[in-house]
Amino acid sequence: MGFARKHLVAIEPLAPEEITAILDTAEGFLEVSRREVKKVPTLRGRTVVNCFFEPSTRTRVSFEIAEKRLSADTVNFSAGGSALAKGETLLDTVRNIEAMAPDLLVIRHRAAGAAEFVARRVRCAVVNAGDGRHEHPTQALLDLFTIRKHRGRIEGLTVTIVGDIANSRVARSDIHALTKLGASVRVCGPPTMLPPEVERLGVEAFHRVEQALEGADVVMALRIQKERLGRAAFPSIREYARVFGINARLLERTAPEAIVMHPGPINRGVEMASDVADGPRSVILDQVENGVAVRMAVLYLLAGGKAEWTS
Amino acid sequence: MGFARKHLVAIEPLAPEEITAILDTAEGFLEVSRREVKKVPTLRGRTVVNCFFEPSTRTRVSFEIAEKRLSADTVNFSAGGSALAKGETLLDTVRNIEAMAPDLLVIRHRAAGAAEFVARRVRCAVVNAGDGRHEHPTQALLDLFTIRKHRGRIEGLTVTIVGDIANSRVARSDIHALTKLGASVRVCGPPTMLPPEVERLGVEAFHRVEQALEGADVVMALRIQKERLGRAAFPSIREYARVFGINARLLERTAPEAIVMHPGPINRGVEMASDVADGPRSVILDQVENGVAVRMAVLYLLAGGKAEWTS
Amino acid sequence: MGFARKHLVAIEPLAPEEITAILDTAEGFLEVSRREVKKVPTLRGRTVVNCFFEPSTRTRVSFEIAEKRLSADTVNFSAGGSALAKGETLLDTVRNIEAMAPDLLVIRHRAAGAAEFVARRVRCAVVNAGDGRHEHPTQALLDLFTIRKHRGRIEGLTVTIVGDIANSRVARSDIHALTKLGASVRVCGPPTMLPPEVERLGVEAFHRVEQALEGADVVMALRIQKERLGRAAFPSIREYARVFGINARLLERTAPEAIVMHPGPINRGVEMASDVADGPRSVILDQVENGVAVRMAVLYLLAGGKAEWTS
Repeated sequence: MGFARKHLVAIEPLAPEEITAILDTAEGFLEVSRREVKKVPTLRGRTVVNCFFEPSTRTRVSFEIAEKRLSADTVNFSAGGSALAKGETLLDTVRNIEAMAPDLLVIRHRAAGAAEFVARRVRCAVVNAGDGRHEHPTQALLDLFTIRKHRGRIEGLTVTIVGDIANSRVARSDIHALTKLGASVRVCGPPTMLPPEVERLGVEAFHRVEQALEGADVVMALRIQKERLGRAAFPSIREYARVFGINARLLERTAPEAIVMHPGPINRGVEMASDVADGPRSVILDQVENGVAVRMAVLYLLAGGKAEWTS
Repeated sequence: MGFARKHLVAIEPLAPEEITAILDTAEGFLEVSRREVKKVPTLRGRTVVNCFFEPSTRTRVSFEIAEKRLSADTVNFSAGGSALAKGETLLDTVRNIEAMAPDLLVIRHRAAGAAEFVARRVRCAVVNAGDGRHEHPTQALLDLFTIRKHRGRIEGLTVTIVGDIANSRVARSDIHALTKLGASVRVCGPPTMLPPEVERLGVEAFHRVEQALEGADVVMALRIQKERLGRAAFPSIREYARVFGINARLLERTAPEAIVMHPGPINRGVEMASDVADGPRSVILDQVENGVAVRMAVLYLLAGGKAEWTS
Repeated sequence: MGFARKHLVAIEPLAPEEITAILDTAEGFLEVSRREVKKVPTLRGRTVVNCFFEPSTRTRVSFEIAEKRLSADTVNFSAGGSALAKGETLLDTVRNIEAMAPDLLVIRHRAAGAAEFVARRVRCAVVNAGDGRHEHPTQALLDLFTIRKHRGRIEGLTVTIVGDIANSRVARSDIHALTKLGASVRVCGPPTMLPPEVERLGVEAFHRVEQALEGADVVMALRIQKERLGRAAFPSIREYARVFGINARLLERTAPEAIVMHPGPINRGVEMASDVADGPRSVILDQVENGVAVRMAVLYLLAGGKAEWTS
C-alpha cells in the first residue's frame, strides 16, 4: 500500500500502512542531505508556498531546506495572525495564493482546523505544519522515523510523553501515530496539563513521572510554554522542573536502551536537564536531521511520487 | 510595435500599442503556470531584487513567483518606511543595491514618484510595484488583461470604478490604461473620495452608484482603507457599505455580461457583498492568476525579450 | 600559499598570504557579476543558511546575491537578539540548523565572539558577518580589495580611519588586515571614540583630523551610531560633523590620488559631506560591488575551492 492522499492535514485519519509508506519513502531521502550535491530534480518547476500565519523559524527552515533539496521553487509568506483571525479572510488569502498556481501549500496557523479548512477549498496539495492545538503531522512522522531508526521498530515499544499534553499538537499527532503503529503510549503531567478523558485516545495517564518512565523505551519531553506556567492551577517553572523535568536520575527507571526526544526548542533545566539533552541517549538532533528527509518524502508523495522511492 | 522601454514606472506615458504589446506577451506566459513544470529559462542568471519599502504580501508573492517561473535569482529586501523617508536616503539605499549588479529592481514605496526617481538614477531596469497614490502599473495591466480575456476587447466598453478614487494608485493606473485603449470610464464615490476636476482624466464622475452602474460592462470596486473612514467628511464603514457597496441588486443595472473586479484584499460586506465577490460574474481570482503572467511578461520585456513571445 | 581554513571568523589570525589568496580569488569572481548570465555552478546543491541574529539588510543582500550567483541553495534565518541572549540558547539554535546539513553558515550576532563560539561547535563552515564590536572580516576584505584595485597595492600606503574606532568591528578588521599587508594605519576621533592603548594595534592615533589626513592615500570614514552621540562625553551630531566630518577642504590635505571609502550606510552631512561621498575620489559604490565578489570568493574557498580560481 502506498500513499495516495492529496493532502497531509492530520495523522488521525491515516491508516498504519500510509504512515509506514511515508517513513519508508523518507529512508531514501535521508541520503540526499548527506551528499556533497544535496539536491534531486524531483520537484523542479513546482511552486511551494510556505504560509506561516503563526511565527516559526525552525519548522519553516526545515520545510524550506526540504523543498530546495527537491529543486522546488519556494516562496515564503508570513502574516501576523490578527488580521487573519476570521476564517473567511484566511480563505480569501489562501484562495488568492492558490490563484497563482502553487503545487503545494505548507500551512501553519494558530487556529485548530485551519489546514483542513484550507485543504477542503483549494485544488493544490496542503501540508499542515501545525494548526493550533490540533495536529503537527510532520513532527509525528519525524518522531516515528527517529524511533524506528534507533529502536528498529515502533510496535510493542512503550513511549512516555511528559508535559502539557492538553495544549500540545505534537502530543496529539504523536499519540495517533504511535498507537496506530502498535506502541503503548503513556502521558504524564500535572492534572491541569492532561486533557479530560485522555484515556480515550488509547493512552495511559500518569501524574507521577517516576511511574510513567518505569521501563519506557522512549521518553519524549514536550516544550513548556513558559507564559502558561505560574498561572492559576499551573505550577511555577521551578516547581514544574523539580517534579516533571527529565534528569539523569529519572532516566534510570527506563529500559536500558531508552532514547530521549524533544521537539525543540528546549527550555534547558525546565522540561529537561542539560546533561540529558546532550547525553548519550538523546536523539534530539537526529530528530531535526530526520525532519528534512521526512518532509522531503511528504512533499514528494503529495506531488505525485511513488512510495518507497530510492535515489 | 513592441515594447522598447527600459523601465515600467507608470501607465500614463505609454502608447496604446505598448500596452497591447505587454498584454499580448502575457498571453504566452499564462500557459507556463498551467504546466506541471512551471518554469522557463528566460531569466536564468539574472538577478531581480524586490525592494518593498512599504509592506505588501500579495504583490510581492506575485512578483516573486513570476520571477522564479522565469528562472531568475530573486532577493527580497524590505524596510520600514521611516528610515527611508528622505529621498536622498532612498537613493543611497538603491544605489547600494544597484552596485551589486541586479538586472531588475521591483520597487514599492509609499512616496508618489519614488519609482520614477529611482529609475532616472540607476542603470538597471525598474518596475514600479506601487508608489504612494501615484501609479501601480502592473495592477492596471493585469486588470486590462482580465477584461480582454472575459469581454474580448477593451475598446468601447464601459468600466465603472467605485471607491476612494482620490487616494487610489490602482484607479489612476486603470483610468490611464482603459482610456488609452478606448474604454469609457466612470468613477463613483462620495465627493470626498473623488479628486477635484477628475473629469480632466477623461472620465465621467458619479456620486450615485445606481447611475454609475447603468449599463456598465465592467464593475471595479476598490479596497477601502478602513482607517480613512469615519473621519471628518468621510462616511462611516456602515454608511459607505450601504451607499456604495456592490451588491446583487445593484448589479442588475449593469450590462447582462458585466464582470466584477477587485484588486484585493476585499473587505467583504464593505465595498462588496460576499455573494457578489464569489458570484458567477466575479473574475477576482482570474485577476490574481493573470497577475503572474502579466508580471512575467513585464520582466521578460524589460530584460530585453521580444514582444508577443510564445513558449 | 592558498586558503585552507574551515571558517572565516576573523582577520586577526590570518597570515598575509591568506588574505592575498582571498583577494586574488575574488578577482576571478568580479567578472561573473558583469555577465548577462551572472551565475556559475560552483556551489550547486550546497545549502547556505544566513543566520542574522542582528538585523542587517545590506550585508544579508550582498551575501545572498553572492550565494545565488554561485548556484547555492540559500535559506534566511533571522531572529530578535533578545531570545538568544544566552550563549547556550544560541548554541541550541545553531546546532538545530546544523542538523539540517547546511554546508555553510553565515552568522551575524550582536555578541562579540559569537561566530567563533559557533565555529568551534559545528561541522559546517562558518562565515562571520559581524559579531558585536569584534570583527567583520568580509568588510575588511572588500575594503582591501577595493584599495588594491584603485591604488595598485596595499603595502606602503597610509590609510586614515575616522570615527568611532572603539565601537567599530569594521575598524578592527580593517586595522588587522591593513597592517598585516604593510599599510600604515592612522585612526582619528574624539578621545571617547578611541580605544585605550589603541597604538597596541599597530596604528597611530590622532585627535585632529587635519593631521590624520596629511598625505593619506586612503580616507575611510566610519558610520556614526547617532544614538551614541550627544551622550555623556560624546559630542553632539553637529559638533561631530563640524570637527570630524570629511569635507572637500579637508581632502586637500591628502595625497593627490587619495580615495575616499565608507562601509555604509552613510549619514550624509555627519561623517561625510555629500559632495565628498559622490565626488570623484569616492569609491564607496565600488566597495559594494566588490563585496559581492569577495563574498563569492570566501564562500567558494570555504566550500573547498582552490585559491586564484578564474572562471
